[in-house]
Amino acid sequence: MYEQELLERLPGIFAQGDGVLVGPGDDCAVLDFGRDKLFLLATDQVLQSVHYPEGTPPAKIAVKLLRRNISDIAAMGGKPAHALLSMSVIGERDGRWLRAFFDATAREARAWGVSVCGGDVCRTLGATDNFCLSISGWVSRDCLCLRSGAADGDLLFATGSFGNSLGSGHHLRFIPRVTEAAFLAGAFTKTMIDVSDGLLLDAARLSGASGLGVSLDVAAVPSRRGSDRSGMLSDGEDYELLAAVRPDKAEELLASWPFKTRLTRIGQFLKSHPGGTVMDSRSKAILCRIGGHRRSSSATAGFDHFRH
Amino acid sequence: MYEQELLERLPGIFAQGDGVLVGPGDDCAVLDFGRDKLFLLATDQVLQSVHYPEGTPPAKIAVKLLRRNISDIAAMGGKPAHALLSMSVIGERDGRWLRAFFDATAREARAWGVSVCGGDVCRTLGATDNFCLSISGWVSRDCLCLRSGAADGDLLFATGSFGNSLGSGHHLRFIPRVTEAAFLAGAFTKTMIDVSDGLLLDAARLSGASGLGVSLDVAAVPSRRGSDRSGMLSDGEDYELLAAVRPDKAEELLASWPFKTRLTRIGQFLKSHPGGTVMDSRSKAILCRIGGHRRSSSATAGFDHFRH
Repeated sequence: MYEQELLERLPGIFAQGDGVLVGPGDDCAVLDFGRDKLFLLATDQVLQSVHYPEGTPPAKIAVKLLRRNISDIAAMGGKPAHALLSMSVIGERDGRWLRAFFDATAREARAWGVSVCGGDVCRTLGATDNFCLSISGWVSRDCLCLRSGAADGDLLFATGSFGNSLGSGHHLRFIPRVTEAAFLAGAFTKTMIDVSDGLLLDAARLSGASGLGVSLDVAAVPSRRGSDRSGMLSDGEDYELLAAVRPDKAEELLASWPFKTRLTRIGQFLKSHPGGTVMDSRSKAILCRIGGHRRSSSATAGFDHFRH
Repeated sequence: MYEQELLERLPGIFAQGDGVLVGPGDDCAVLDFGRDKLFLLATDQVLQSVHYPEGTPPAKIAVKLLRRNISDIAAMGGKPAHALLSMSVIGERDGRWLRAFFDATAREARAWGVSVCGGDVCRTLGATDNFCLSISGWVSRDCLCLRSGAADGDLLFATGSFGNSLGSGHHLRFIPRVTEAAFLAGAFTKTMIDVSDGLLLDAARLSGASGLGVSLDVAAVPSRRGSDRSGMLSDGEDYELLAAVRPDKAEELLASWPFKTRLTRIGQFLKSHPGGTVMDSRSKAILCRIGGHRRSSSATAGFDHFRH
C-alpha cells in the first residue's frame, strides 16, 4: 500500500518548468515551444520475461518496443518523430542477435517516420535483457488529446478488440492506431488513451481524469479470438484507443469512419457514477475503480507499469 | 570483432528525418526546430554492478543517473531542460528504497532546472536494477559544440583531473561541467566531449571526429588522488570536458577562466598524426587509436557504452 501511494504521488514530486504543458500522468508529456505544434515525449520499457517470453526473436522485440511507444504518441493525437534507444543485454546475445534487433529497429522506425537519433548499448550483469525507448512526436494544438476533458454524457468509443493479446501473439504484432487517432483527434475527440493495461483499468483512468465514471456495455465490447470475458476486460497489451465522443457527433463519426479497424461504442461517461469507476450498464456492479488506493494507483501517476 | 563492426555501423543504419541536425555519434542528438536555440536529446543508463556496486544508496544512484546525462548536455555547450525516467527494479526494493530514489531524483532535477516530465517504473524478473534516463536541453546556435571541428594546431584543454573515479567515489558525486561548458562554448571552442570512457578513448574520439590525431602531454594531465598513470588515462567516469581551443585564444582563456575547476592544456591536435590516434608528446608511441577496429569502435557510434 505504501508503494502504491508513493507511485500515485510521483507526478506531484517532480517540479515542472515553463513550457511543460502536461507533465507526468498522461500517455505523453506535452511541451510548448511556442510553435504551431506541440512536442510530445514519452518513454516505455520492454523487459524479457515481463513483456515477452524468453526466446522471442530479437526482431519481434524491436518491433514491440517501437510500436508500444508509438501507441503513446497516437493516444495524444500525435505523429511520432524521434526516438532514443537504450538497451542492456546479457552476455550470450551475439553479433547476429544484435544485428537482427538493430535492423528491425531501423526498418520499423523508417516505416513510421521515426528518426532513431541516439542511444546507449550496455552489457548487463543481470539475468535478463532490458530495452527502453524514449519517443517524441508532434501534435497540432487543435488535435491534442488528453486523458481528461470528457463531459457528462459523452460516449465511450473503442477501436479494435480486446483480450488474449499474449496468447494470440497480438502484443508482438499490433499496429499502433496512429492513423485512426489522427482521424479522431480534434474533429471527434479531445479525450483519448491507449489501452495497454487492460480495458477496465484504462477506461477508469480516462474517466477518472475527467472526474466522471463510466457505464460500460460489456456485451458490446469486441473480444479477440480466444479471449474470455475476464481477459477481454483486464488482460491488457491491446494497444487500442479509447475515446470520448459527444453524443451529437457519434452518428457522423460512425458514418465517416474510413478504416477497416473496428470502431465500437462501448459505454458512456456519467457524472452520476463516482469518478474513476467503471460500472456495468445496469449501474449495479463496480467493475473497476481507481483512486482511494483500491486499485493500483500508478493508474493515475503516468508511471504506469509498476504492477508488472 | 563482428560485434564491434556492427556497433560502429549503427549510426548509419538509422535514417534521420528533416530537422535532425546531428544524429547518433555525438554526445547528444541535435534537432533544429527553426527556433533561436537548438534542441538536444541524449540517453544513458545506470546499471547495478556495472555503473555502481550493489548496496549503493538509492539517492546516490539517482544523482549519478541524472548528472551522467546532464554531462552529455554540457558537452554540447547546452543547458538541460527535460528528462524521462525509466527503471526496472528487483522485488526487494521496497517503498522506502523507492521513495529515497524518487526524492533524490526530484531534488537533483530541481537543482539543475530539469523537468522530469514522464517515466516508466517496472519490476524486473532479472537479478539487477536498471535505470535509464533520457534528457533534453537547449543550446544557442552560436554555442553548439560537436566532437568534430577541431583544426590542425588547436590545443587540447581539459577540466578537472582524471583516474580512480570508482575507487574515490568521484563517479557518484561529480558535478557535471555545465557552467564551465557554457563559458567555453562559442567563445573559446566549438569542439567538445565529456570524458566518460577514459581520457585516451574520448580524446581519440574527439580528434578522430575531426580527422586529426592528438599529441598528448601525459605529464601535464592532472591525476585524481589515488590514481596511477594508467588509471588516469583509461579509467573513465571522470565526467570532465575536453575541448579544442585555437592557439591564439589560449592565453585569453586561461586569464579569464573564472572557476575553481582546474583547466589544463594537455595536448594538441595535429594533422601530422593519423586521425583518431592519441600519441605521446614525442610522437613516438600510439597511446590509443580508434577506427580500423583496433579499438572498440562503439567509440564512433554514439552507442558508447557497449564495452561495459
